[in-house]
Amino acid sequence: MKKLTACLLAGAALAMAVPASAQFAKAEDAIKYRKNALFVMQQNFGRVAGMAGGKIPFDAGVAAESAAVAEYMAKLPWAGFGPGTDKGETKAKPEIWTDKAKFDDYAKKMQDEMSKLTIAAKSGNLDNIKVAVNATGGACKSCHDDFRAK
Amino acid sequence: MKKLTACLLAGAALAMAVPASAQFAKAEDAIKYRKNALFVMQQNFGRVAGMAGGKIPFDAGVAAESAAVAEYMAKLPWAGFGPGTDKGETKAKPEIWTDKAKFDDYAKKMQDEMSKLTIAAKSGNLDNIKVAVNATGGACKSCHDDFRAK
Repeated sequence: MKKLTACLLAGAALAMAVPASAQFAKAEDAIKYRKNALFVMQQNFGRVAGMAGGKIPFDAGVAAESAAVAEYMAKLPWAGFGPGTDKGETKAKPEIWTDKAKFDDYAKKMQDEMSKLTIAAKSGNLDNIKVAVNATGGACKSCHDDFRAK
Repeated sequence: MKKLTACLLAGAALAMAVPASAQFAKAEDAIKYRKNALFVMQQNFGRVAGMAGGKIPFDAGVAAESAAVAEYMAKLPWAGFGPGTDKGETKAKPEIWTDKAKFDDYAKKMQDEMSKLTIAAKSGNLDNIKVAVNATGGACKSCHDDFRAK
């Protein structure tokens, strides 16, 4: 009976700690989530960038698929930047939370560029892809410069 | 000139090591990719499972969105199980590569169940969600039992 009560209380505590509007059971999970989503994004973006830079042989089908996955992944990390996720194994600067409007602008800009990259990759035109890769890479860099510690 | 030649050779070596049909520059990246994709999937699936199990207050909108993300993520890890990715920081058992047909079946089964979960979550009916969560959880478990080291 004690065990059951303990379980119910733990369940209630968890339920309070994790309203449905919040996303993660622990700050640690949120930090890992955003890093993992960004890594999956980067691997796909990096493949297209490698093709744009001539380091990987251009394959239009692979480029289009990779860009589409990167575009999807670009939507996910932001849920992991909730309040209380500024401490832990992270290079995230405090400015993410103190200058949230700017951070959100960068995040939106990156997603917009990633969407343009998907369109360029679907076109199969390597010159278009190069332009979009540069713009997307620039959006990544601006945000890293301002909001990620070295 | 020497530097340029070295760069060109390095580029050529990379190009040979990474044909467009392959996906990753290093086995280490492939391993990290599949783990990270599975973590992002699990966090989203876990949120829906938490609602189904009464540990997180049910929110139909969040459940539907989380299930959709989990369904998408379920497609990604498999690219990270290519040849040569059996060694390193991984719990993947050798059977993944020696009994690939079975592993692929499990992978397909899990994706199918995840798609059913998205449909159930969209319906907003918690009983349907519970059934689909159990089936999906079962698909995860079968594969972990046979193909993941403790």
